[in-house]
Amino acid sequence: MRTGSPLLRLSFGTGSSPTCQRRAASPPGAIPLLGFKLPAMAPPPPSEQPDAAAPGAGAISRVLIFMAMEKEAMPLVNKFKLVEAPARESIFPKGAPWTRFYGIYKDLHLDLVMPGKDAVFGVDSVGTVSAALVTYASIEALKPDLIINAGTAGGFKAKGASVKDVFLASDVAFHDRRIPIPVFDMYGIGARKTFAAPNILKELNFKLGKLSTGDSLDMCPQDEEAILSNDATIKDMEGAAVAYVADMFSTPAIFVKAVTDIVDGDKPTAEEFLNNLISVTAALDVAVTKLVDFICGKRISDL
Amino acid sequence: MRTGSPLLRLSFGTGSSPTCQRRAASPPGAIPLLGFKLPAMAPPPPSEQPDAAAPGAGAISRVLIFMAMEKEAMPLVNKFKLVEAPARESIFPKGAPWTRFYGIYKDLHLDLVMPGKDAVFGVDSVGTVSAALVTYASIEALKPDLIINAGTAGGFKAKGASVKDVFLASDVAFHDRRIPIPVFDMYGIGARKTFAAPNILKELNFKLGKLSTGDSLDMCPQDEEAILSNDATIKDMEGAAVAYVADMFSTPAIFVKAVTDIVDGDKPTAEEFLNNLISVTAALDVAVTKLVDFICGKRISDL
Repeated sequence: MRTGSPLLRLSFGTGSSPTCQRRAASPPGAIPLLGFKLPAMAPPPPSEQPDAAAPGAGAISRVLIFMAMEKEAMPLVNKFKLVEAPARESIFPKGAPWTRFYGIYKDLHLDLVMPGKDAVFGVDSVGTVSAALVTYASIEALKPDLIINAGTAGGFKAKGASVKDVFLASDVAFHDRRIPIPVFDMYGIGARKTFAAPNILKELNFKLGKLSTGDSLDMCPQDEEAILSNDATIKDMEGAAVAYVADMFSTPAIFVKAVTDIVDGDKPTAEEFLNNLISVTAALDVAVTKLVDFICGKRISDL
Repeated sequence: MRTGSPLLRLSFGTGSSPTCQRRAASPPGAIPLLGFKLPAMAPPPPSEQPDAAAPGAGAISRVLIFMAMEKEAMPLVNKFKLVEAPARESIFPKGAPWTRFYGIYKDLHLDLVMPGKDAVFGVDSVGTVSAALVTYASIEALKPDLIINAGTAGGFKAKGASVKDVFLASDVAFHDRRIPIPVFDMYGIGARKTFAAPNILKELNFKLGKLSTGDSLDMCPQDEEAILSNDATIKDMEGAAVAYVADMFSTPAIFVKAVTDIVDGDKPTAEEFLNNLISVTAALDVAVTKLVDFICGKRISDL
């Protein structure tokens, strides 16, 4: 019913993903858990240790990648040769559908987490609530040095976005939390600058734009008004929630979003999104691989 | 700007609160944490132990109350004589604004948690993201037998709601997560039955109705359409998110919502909400006190 309204324009952004390559490893190591170090069950076999993360002092060691949709994430999982954490070793509570893939890539411990399939409906648990929860539980357990939220997004051609563009978000905000009481209104919008990464921007040739987040794939007139007010070039369903949690932990977070559909274009967005998902995911793959390669051996202040 | 639109009708529901009375206690006891029992630093002094929760087998022992707004919650904190957990003993990570008050009331360990004041804007961290996060972290640390989400709500007079009515929610769903792709649409709505508590309903004389949750205080036409489709009598900003997390942990959850404003009435809702907040909070106080008294000594199956 909501789909049929001519007032609604579909767009997207749900978190998407890329791919990579490298040796798999299963280094549970010591997992910091709410501040307590739990000893690993057993050290990883020597064959898996050769280049395992022994970076220089201050170099980025542990990177958490959050992606909302399995279709977006699996190419990256395969490319980096990440392995799924078995249920018995899960850092997540029983009952949570969240999934974690991990491994070592060059100098980095990589953890790729997803909100997983909804227990009732079997679809990816997209949106802000799941994104916030998975990000929270993952930071608590893994204490990453850096978070990458990679995914797909709707883009606004009026702001210069085209399908397959890959954006780095300079700012995030919400567009569907309208609380018209003074100060609460600003809290609802929750605009914040993301971690500034000028060298990534310069070296990797991403576009720069503001990201607006909401729990709907479509865009009602009130959403549109808020997105314009947020000065957003791209629109997704998770970014601002991930940023909110990352900020709570003072963990730097980078938002890499590939455009699947043009929100202010003339094509129905759900269709455009689904048609472009595979090819745009490939573009996102390339971008995230380049990004992870760039991060290897660097410090946070080098980004 | 969003406020000014004649299409928007304000309503509410952000979690609200009541009051109580009883002795304070600081029984950190053994806090189950991600499945690991951490020993308490020291047992509570004998003076605080007299009636400390030694209920019959199977009786409800630990109740978690989640309320979104401090103004709603503080009367209850005072009435139950709950004390604030000091920062050094916090079950929440450094950086999270969440607050916890706790104590022993009759046979029950009570924990009242709130999302706290936003670090940037200083207002209560209302809405689904914070509600989900606090509920998650609290269940992880405290393993409650039962959750009560108490708060204020907007009510629909067309469905029989009046200001100061206290409702028990039979069902919850979201009204601002429109994802017009088959199955994703149902996931977005996320309708679920709440824990059935026929004896509470019968004994305490609450009204019964369906609750619809969204991150906006107002109601745009798309929200209204979804709320109608959800067959909701009351509208809040946290309930369905709390229910989602409680279900993930298979923890029974009860939703007690007092009506501050009539969504389908002729008064501007932000005004009506603010004008009625104090008096409706008093009604909610009475209701939650009666509810907690009713729960004392009972099993989950008695509710």
